[in-house]
Amino acid sequence: MLYAVIMAGGSGTRLWPLSRRNQPKQALKLIGDRTMFQHAVDRLSPLFSPDRICVVTNDELATVLKRQAPEIPDGNFIVEPAGRDSAPAAGLAAVHLLRRDPSAIMVMLTADHFIVDTAQFRAALGAASEVASEGAIVTLGIHPTAPDTRFGYISLGTGQQIVDGFRIYESAGFREKPDQATAQKFLEDGRHVWNSGMFVWRADRLMSEFEQQLPETYEVLRSIGDALGTPDAGRVLVDEWAKVKRVSIDYGLMEHAGRVYVIPIDIGWSDIGSWGALLDVLDADADGNVSRGPLLARDTRGTYVRSDKLVAVIGLSDMVIVDTPDVLLVCPRDRAEEVRDLVRKMEAEGNSAYL
Amino acid sequence: MLYAVIMAGGSGTRLWPLSRRNQPKQALKLIGDRTMFQHAVDRLSPLFSPDRICVVTNDELATVLKRQAPEIPDGNFIVEPAGRDSAPAAGLAAVHLLRRDPSAIMVMLTADHFIVDTAQFRAALGAASEVASEGAIVTLGIHPTAPDTRFGYISLGTGQQIVDGFRIYESAGFREKPDQATAQKFLEDGRHVWNSGMFVWRADRLMSEFEQQLPETYEVLRSIGDALGTPDAGRVLVDEWAKVKRVSIDYGLMEHAGRVYVIPIDIGWSDIGSWGALLDVLDADADGNVSRGPLLARDTRGTYVRSDKLVAVIGLSDMVIVDTPDVLLVCPRDRAEEVRDLVRKMEAEGNSAYL
Repeated sequence: MLYAVIMAGGSGTRLWPLSRRNQPKQALKLIGDRTMFQHAVDRLSPLFSPDRICVVTNDELATVLKRQAPEIPDGNFIVEPAGRDSAPAAGLAAVHLLRRDPSAIMVMLTADHFIVDTAQFRAALGAASEVASEGAIVTLGIHPTAPDTRFGYISLGTGQQIVDGFRIYESAGFREKPDQATAQKFLEDGRHVWNSGMFVWRADRLMSEFEQQLPETYEVLRSIGDALGTPDAGRVLVDEWAKVKRVSIDYGLMEHAGRVYVIPIDIGWSDIGSWGALLDVLDADADGNVSRGPLLARDTRGTYVRSDKLVAVIGLSDMVIVDTPDVLLVCPRDRAEEVRDLVRKMEAEGNSAYL
Repeated sequence: MLYAVIMAGGSGTRLWPLSRRNQPKQALKLIGDRTMFQHAVDRLSPLFSPDRICVVTNDELATVLKRQAPEIPDGNFIVEPAGRDSAPAAGLAAVHLLRRDPSAIMVMLTADHFIVDTAQFRAALGAASEVASEGAIVTLGIHPTAPDTRFGYISLGTGQQIVDGFRIYESAGFREKPDQATAQKFLEDGRHVWNSGMFVWRADRLMSEFEQQLPETYEVLRSIGDALGTPDAGRVLVDEWAKVKRVSIDYGLMEHAGRVYVIPIDIGWSDIGSWGALLDVLDADADGNVSRGPLLARDTRGTYVRSDKLVAVIGLSDMVIVDTPDVLLVCPRDRAEEVRDLVRKMEAEGNSAYL
């Protein structure tokens, strides 16, 4: 059977001051009246019924996310005692799925990205699952639209097959975030796609990769899996998890895995990596402005406004204005990523009041 | 005796959204922890004791201003039943003063302007009073620092005298707000000063100007003055005031008055005519920024911030950010005067919620 696993434990700072330590991007209503997590759940229907959607998250967020998706059974929320990056999180989901279904196919998804063409997205998952059911690892690659240096890239190999109308390539390797010149080359050669962080694999295939490549983590995962359903499950999880080293799927598993495939897709994907990126995916008015709340605009273009108040603007171009109960951010759209630096500065100064 | 009369009835829209119909500029803390009205009172000390400071205002504002200047006796607040521009307001003050002191010299001042050099200001008032005590009208003129088209100008005549070290000129005429070319000429020829709206005259001289130039208003003022101190005073004021036509001192009295003099002064005067103008008179930090409240600034210069929240800014130059409980304004400093147009638009649309 096919299961979706939404990785929803992350926290980020790029949408500060709206996103905070206890209120990460996936929990925010950035697009319409649904949170990013709710969009991530919504777009799985009708491919996955709610009982086949699992969520990996932390203890604090679990309460919030359960409330946001009451249709998902409580037992499908898998709580990490602490964040250990993506590989251990995926492994934890795998041991849960294997207990339920030894032939489970696991579709690993992100909770805080946006996808415009959800039908095409589901169709791609269907095709990827067919390939994964035979034991391969399939990643969803995004056709690059810019020489972006914020993403990892996957090189397309020469071998390819067509499944359900999708061209599926052998992977010729995962590339770290490139420099500008390399990113430009990747964009132009047509042989590279963005690594979206979405993977499809059989849970048992994933476990065998752990066994070969990350044997210490494999032992931990096995202990946790063996204890599931016993009175010791909680204690074993906490004790074993403390031994786990942080490692990402890309570095820890993908670099040396065999039979890795890529489906390049064009689904209107965005990681909403900044306020500027959010503006790109929202419907703007005739002047290119987007406002969540009443706006009184004079000679203003390309500006994103988020406030409960009336916001009056005069003579602005491509600005971001984000008003929260205790912090107001104003910056040019193309410098919105620098909020990260503001957050780091506050962290360095021990000023946690606004984090 | 010398009396100060602070004209505090006006309302303006240029400092919206902080200034509102029921909260005009003079009632706001724009500079330091005192309101503009409080600054106007403070700077009169020690030249005027509080009992010789009168305030002309409207019913609604009187309560607010009395609270702001409890040292001024209640009876010194003169309430206009309705705004009728500056000439009738000055006349109303004059009849009050004449009842108290038939030889009163009246120093007419504004409630919402800022003056840096208050010692020089008081010295100029002293010199002007000496000339006014002999029956002349003396106006305080401001040395122009720019070809400003927002002000009326006064042409300096050839006759001049020196009093207390101040050079006092005959007026060669009041000029309406000029066009840009004329304002530039006025700036360069050194023969013109800004009309500050501050005048010194004997109250009886003012009344005789009303008698000659605005006889209908003179009759009204006489009736009101005759009723002062009687049980009918309130009723007479309301009934008579309804007959008064709107007219300014400049148009109604100054254009045809004789023996008008000007003292050009350099006292660091500003009418605080916009948020941009306010920024000019405030002490800025090393980057030219001024913030009332916590500011987290990155690569930002020449920016005014007013908010109770933490305001985070990145990459701004010469911007104005004014955050109030129900409205947030963001605009470039040199376009801040356009808030007037926003206010007019809301008025035209019958949208009074934010006015």
